[in-house]
Amino acid sequence: MKKINTSPISGTQELLPTSQFIFDTLKAKITKIYRSHGFLNIETPILERTEVLFAKAGGDTEKQIYEVKKTGEDADKKADEALRFDHTVPLARYIVEHESDLSFPFKVSQIGENFRGERAQRGRFREFYQCDADIIGRNDLPIFYDADIIDTLIDAYQSFELKTPVVARISNRKILKGLLEGLNLQDKSRDISSIIDHSEKVPREKTEQNLLEIGLTEENQAKILQFIDLNGDIDSVANGLKSLGVSNPTLDEGIAELAEVISILKSSGHEDIAKADLRIIRGLDYYTGTVFEFALPEYPEIGSIGGGGRYDNLTGYFSDQKFPGVGGSIGLNRLFFVLNEKNLLSDAPENPIDYAIIPISTAEIPYALEVAKDLRTRGASVTIVSGDKKLADKLKYASKLVKNAIILGEEEVKNKSYEIKRFI
Amino acid sequence: MKKINTSPISGTQELLPTSQFIFDTLKAKITKIYRSHGFLNIETPILERTEVLFAKAGGDTEKQIYEVKKTGEDADKKADEALRFDHTVPLARYIVEHESDLSFPFKVSQIGENFRGERAQRGRFREFYQCDADIIGRNDLPIFYDADIIDTLIDAYQSFELKTPVVARISNRKILKGLLEGLNLQDKSRDISSIIDHSEKVPREKTEQNLLEIGLTEENQAKILQFIDLNGDIDSVANGLKSLGVSNPTLDEGIAELAEVISILKSSGHEDIAKADLRIIRGLDYYTGTVFEFALPEYPEIGSIGGGGRYDNLTGYFSDQKFPGVGGSIGLNRLFFVLNEKNLLSDAPENPIDYAIIPISTAEIPYALEVAKDLRTRGASVTIVSGDKKLADKLKYASKLVKNAIILGEEEVKNKSYEIKRFI
Repeated sequence: MKKINTSPISGTQELLPTSQFIFDTLKAKITKIYRSHGFLNIETPILERTEVLFAKAGGDTEKQIYEVKKTGEDADKKADEALRFDHTVPLARYIVEHESDLSFPFKVSQIGENFRGERAQRGRFREFYQCDADIIGRNDLPIFYDADIIDTLIDAYQSFELKTPVVARISNRKILKGLLEGLNLQDKSRDISSIIDHSEKVPREKTEQNLLEIGLTEENQAKILQFIDLNGDIDSVANGLKSLGVSNPTLDEGIAELAEVISILKSSGHEDIAKADLRIIRGLDYYTGTVFEFALPEYPEIGSIGGGGRYDNLTGYFSDQKFPGVGGSIGLNRLFFVLNEKNLLSDAPENPIDYAIIPISTAEIPYALEVAKDLRTRGASVTIVSGDKKLADKLKYASKLVKNAIILGEEEVKNKSYEIKRFI
Repeated sequence: MKKINTSPISGTQELLPTSQFIFDTLKAKITKIYRSHGFLNIETPILERTEVLFAKAGGDTEKQIYEVKKTGEDADKKADEALRFDHTVPLARYIVEHESDLSFPFKVSQIGENFRGERAQRGRFREFYQCDADIIGRNDLPIFYDADIIDTLIDAYQSFELKTPVVARISNRKILKGLLEGLNLQDKSRDISSIIDHSEKVPREKTEQNLLEIGLTEENQAKILQFIDLNGDIDSVANGLKSLGVSNPTLDEGIAELAEVISILKSSGHEDIAKADLRIIRGLDYYTGTVFEFALPEYPEIGSIGGGGRYDNLTGYFSDQKFPGVGGSIGLNRLFFVLNEKNLLSDAPENPIDYAIIPISTAEIPYALEVAKDLRTRGASVTIVSGDKKLADKLKYASKLVKNAIILGEEEVKNKSYEIKRFI
């Protein structure tokens, strides 16, 4: 009988071993791809100074920060420490702290848990893994690295071998910025960005209406609607933008950058995956150039499964030096949750354990150890099933864990042989 | 100029990428060995209910628990959530919660961060990785699994390829328990255990004196001193115990169990590493049989670098069902800290990145991507160095990151060739 509530806290992930194995495999694949693309892994502490976290947090995030205190510490004292809510703030602190020991561009990965006191709901996590790849320049950072980040994330998603295609939807903040400057609508930038950002989730008429409600002329409304429809092939997107008849240097710069990013991704063999898509806004204020999101086109209801972009100044809150960067992030818990829900993960996950060796009596344990060592040397995962239970019971136990059992009795020890019994 | 203190919080680990790479490599080796021995990995949340954590915590631990609250939550309200301080309490909760979905013996590994509000000091961590392997039985668990845990940890330590040997010092709590029962000293058990536990850290005379001070006769003092000296070969330890002239069934059981564990480890090829050593006590009250610690005999000042033991009832606080277990744990941050301090890690760590490809101009980027993809397919980590800096600057940057650079110009693209420049 249970004496206490033993369920995990809501908004946290707790998996049975077979699911955990699949989760761990996805994490290992991301780790491997990030490393193969030359990212240096770092790990900042989960515990951060509150003043560091509050330097950047704002709005909802600020209310969601978990502050920590030791048991029995003065309840009235303000907490000095809190749990990080993303990898970006600690990375900024890390770069300012260790700048003289780093080489720039600094290609850096961070894979670890973050914490946000969000309202608990299905598929929303309060403790969650973010898998971040960032490239940070000192003073400047070539546009090539924007493509490098997207290229890396594409390889990561492809390594999952999902049952459905993945696309990278890519835009550049300068395009909308330049367009609105050109149309003299820069003071409505926030409203228009928000309407574009929501345009996929509401009926077309709603978007049309929203644009008029914020005071756009019908002519400008039509231009924004045209803008929203620009996606797919980069040349047709560029032509579509020209047909809007707006001339602005920021707009031109944005188009050129987007074209270069897409062109590099084509050279990298990702023509079918990397698509220009001007609906991509990304909520965060600090993106200044390239922005991108990953999605599963056959499952539009899932929305973004990862994304990122270019920021001009990572460390502004902590230092006067300028460190522009570009980064991308995969939220692994939510991704894993939706992939399971839609059954998009590979059907036949590898078994976590390869062999169960069952010595009939303790006399066969030395030989069991010998066989186990040999199989482990060859890369297998091997468990030995011991104890005085009946062989039938041990086989039943083994059949739940592995596909291959090896029973060792006197005969096998004498012959230095063994037979593999396959459970089907 | 820095605008804020950017150092990490004291008692946390923050490494430069090259050190992080070595740390990550140790963690990956442990992960691999645990898996190869048939342990199923799980990950419980870092956030736990305070009532779950306080069910077991006591003494110092209770004062060291980090409680968490969302920003702006009522300061007077008691915190419902806290950070786990070990893997054992969450594992007990996990087993009670998921019991019907698990197969027993349940071989389970947990590798993750734990938090304790310890006083900060050199080499002590408040946020730290524990790498735990446990085997949990339902109602009973054969002694074989005690050896299985130690065998697994020996393989983990051996995989580190340290410059100094590692030993596993093994005892069994039943031996001292039975001895004290036989000598009618069971009411002094706590004092005597503590004196034995400290005997390695103080001069012999101090131990002799301590034993008299708690009221032992000179005869019993002599027996305990003899006991303390029993270590090394299991047969001589067993004979030494017999020569104390005490007859007690618990004592005999303890000797038999210890002998069996050592014998299995010998069969597994660990004769030189697995040693009986009756000084091993392990502070935690819940150990009931096998106890063990790993140490570096050439560096006795370091003390234990990991350990564990057998516990009769893991889940007593949460359930009436009985789940005996045996487990071991490696505290990775402290281990990494002392190995660095004593320079015991392998001299030539693999480079995190294998190749830097430098296209002379943007025209060579497509070929650079092609070469990178090819090398990555073969398992290498490859970074591409782009931008309009001078070649000499790019080479200088590359030389800090990698041993091998590949410079690509018109000629290389035309010939579909490349040359590897090695930095020595």
